[in-house]
Amino acid sequence: MNIPQSSYPRIVIIGGGFGGISLAKKLAGQEVQVVLMDKHNYHTFQPLLYQVSTGGLEPDSIAYPIRKVLQGYDNFFFRLAEVDEINTEKRLVMTNIGELKYDYLVIAIGSETNFFGNKALQQNSMAMKTIPQSLNLRSLILQNFEQALLTDDYHEREALMNFVIVGGGPTGVELAGALAEIKKGILPKDYPDLDTRRAQINLVQGGDRILPAMSEIASKKAEDFLEKLGVHVWKDIRVMGYDGKLVTTDTETSFETATLIWAAGVQAVSLKGLDAEEFVTRGNRLKVNRFNQVEGFDSIFAIGDVAYMETEAFPMGHPMMAQPAIQQGELLGRNLVRLMQNKPMKPFVYRDKGNMATIGRNKAVCDLPRFKFQGVFAWFVWMFVHLYFLIGFRNRVVVFINWVYNYVRFDREARLIIRPYKKQLRT
Amino acid sequence: MNIPQSSYPRIVIIGGGFGGISLAKKLAGQEVQVVLMDKHNYHTFQPLLYQVSTGGLEPDSIAYPIRKVLQGYDNFFFRLAEVDEINTEKRLVMTNIGELKYDYLVIAIGSETNFFGNKALQQNSMAMKTIPQSLNLRSLILQNFEQALLTDDYHEREALMNFVIVGGGPTGVELAGALAEIKKGILPKDYPDLDTRRAQINLVQGGDRILPAMSEIASKKAEDFLEKLGVHVWKDIRVMGYDGKLVTTDTETSFETATLIWAAGVQAVSLKGLDAEEFVTRGNRLKVNRFNQVEGFDSIFAIGDVAYMETEAFPMGHPMMAQPAIQQGELLGRNLVRLMQNKPMKPFVYRDKGNMATIGRNKAVCDLPRFKFQGVFAWFVWMFVHLYFLIGFRNRVVVFINWVYNYVRFDREARLIIRPYKKQLRT
Repeated sequence: MNIPQSSYPRIVIIGGGFGGISLAKKLAGQEVQVVLMDKHNYHTFQPLLYQVSTGGLEPDSIAYPIRKVLQGYDNFFFRLAEVDEINTEKRLVMTNIGELKYDYLVIAIGSETNFFGNKALQQNSMAMKTIPQSLNLRSLILQNFEQALLTDDYHEREALMNFVIVGGGPTGVELAGALAEIKKGILPKDYPDLDTRRAQINLVQGGDRILPAMSEIASKKAEDFLEKLGVHVWKDIRVMGYDGKLVTTDTETSFETATLIWAAGVQAVSLKGLDAEEFVTRGNRLKVNRFNQVEGFDSIFAIGDVAYMETEAFPMGHPMMAQPAIQQGELLGRNLVRLMQNKPMKPFVYRDKGNMATIGRNKAVCDLPRFKFQGVFAWFVWMFVHLYFLIGFRNRVVVFINWVYNYVRFDREARLIIRPYKKQLRT
Repeated sequence: MNIPQSSYPRIVIIGGGFGGISLAKKLAGQEVQVVLMDKHNYHTFQPLLYQVSTGGLEPDSIAYPIRKVLQGYDNFFFRLAEVDEINTEKRLVMTNIGELKYDYLVIAIGSETNFFGNKALQQNSMAMKTIPQSLNLRSLILQNFEQALLTDDYHEREALMNFVIVGGGPTGVELAGALAEIKKGILPKDYPDLDTRRAQINLVQGGDRILPAMSEIASKKAEDFLEKLGVHVWKDIRVMGYDGKLVTTDTETSFETATLIWAAGVQAVSLKGLDAEEFVTRGNRLKVNRFNQVEGFDSIFAIGDVAYMETEAFPMGHPMMAQPAIQQGELLGRNLVRLMQNKPMKPFVYRDKGNMATIGRNKAVCDLPRFKFQGVFAWFVWMFVHLYFLIGFRNRVVVFINWVYNYVRFDREARLIIRPYKKQLRT
């Protein structure tokens, strides 16, 4: 892998997401050698992926080159690599570009879409966890309308204009809202020769309310907002199967659709060699102690979505979101330095900064630790917070300009089919 | 194809490039039915493709949804279609989504990379005529450097960092300049563990000067600029072959490289059914009269790169560039209306607005009809003109912001490998 030997201990970080990047930043200037690996050469700002899928933002403005984050430090190395296996005995990371010895290993590899073992669902539905996936979805949505124009078959046309989103978490809710605004603001202008009023957006939630991680009032308001936008919200319905045409559920309700978007769950990415039953738990996550040390190891850590840390406040682990990852990354950076100085590490305490979701134009819901509010102000707070956490000055400016433009013009100009998506149906 | 019957005559335009779009705009509000077909759902601003390849601009900001151009007119239709054949007897356009009858047909399908029949070159080198091609090139350039880090083989590393651009027209010159600036400004910071001084940019030109369509002084200055930036300019050398590793030429010079970029020629896209020897001429172009009527047809027109119109000023046809396409599209729009009003059409006269190319930061060459100038002022003029002709207000703002950012920070942040490019070597 051509990483030079160093007199400093080598910290290998797997994953350049929120956790990996904030950890790396904290280690800048310290007496360590840092090797960050990721299968992409960029950091993805996942909370805005749904805006890429719906043509509101360019993919490049929610991505940031990882090498640029690490610029200026001679003891920092990035490698574009896919990790195959961890050899914990020999302290080796095995990858598609060779193996590397670590002194400390940090698993920050994140999560992937969880289809709960349902192969048909996995093969026929669209996920939205990476930029290429979001671009595929963008292409498919646009292709559907182009195709709907051409068919004389009433059923086929309805199915092409019917969107079923499974999962009432922030991703599902935000995507549903964005699609509803496209239906209202863009489709009638772009497709005057198509009865786009017949386009449908269905949001299907297994539980009895959407945004279950938020307050009851936020759930209620979000549902109101969605219904005002014309989204059909289905609760207490579990999707059971999808053959590329028909969505079946555990009730009598079913949906004929060409597009099922699966946003109903995530699981930690598994790593061979770190998959023993003793420490892998709910959602594939790795059990860690309060210092993010993986159970049974002194020098292996896990942060972010991969880490399962039981605390009094979070007996089922922290939510798989950006904030815990960022905070764990920052603390681990300080703790690793303390560890090498033979000082005691500090236990992790999650500072909950709140939760929010946007539904559309002037419509968002915010649960802050002290206040809960919904509507226009929440929408501004949502935008401010997302711009603040977005990495890169240029990205912030470009995203801001796009938002202003989209708001003023009721438009989304990135409705481009750059790489057509070829649906491969397998049942 | 589900285009409704209309009492107006139907004008079918094939291609949403500069020519097709300006024609369509001129036909807005006229008593005609317009059907525009393109294999992409967006217009591509080709003059800036090289900035996409080099990470300076996001692909989405040089693309513009064609449907948006046509918004607001009930008698305008867009179809995402690939044209297979023209049946001139039955007046039919045959496509992958069905066939359509035309009253008037306008071929504005543009041009593609011309490899002059050299299969090995075609298969192993990179072209840069479309957005997907430019993104492939962007990925490949970045992948090369990631791979160069990993190899201990001196030859392999040199080949990975060696870029050979064939063709000294504006595309080749601008790409060479941009790569040179990346070498200087970004590589040393991104790859501190790689001796990026060994990266090489070679520009190979068959003729005795680069930018042969411009003045001698522009050629001379552009070459000076390139050499100051560290580009090796090779003249009077013709590339003969490339097996994916070694570029051979008609001299003793050869280049070991993993990346050959072919910018040495374009040819009009052929259309089955409109490929008779009588009217297909140099570069696959269709012979047209001064009204852009294809030789032998009253109701078939060709504009832009596809049209070969001999005039006194341009005995070999007009240059295959944006300006002739735009001007022919605009005139044809007026002429079609005249034709239907039984008024005589007006002959095309090309107003040469000049020629320009940018080489890099503060460095451009401009040949205007009355002035020829080079350097900083030319560079500002180049930027202004490109922003002016870019379609879409949002695109202009985003491109402008990116340019300011790149200029101030000596940076290009879109250095992202979103879809890795898999090189398929065939010899």
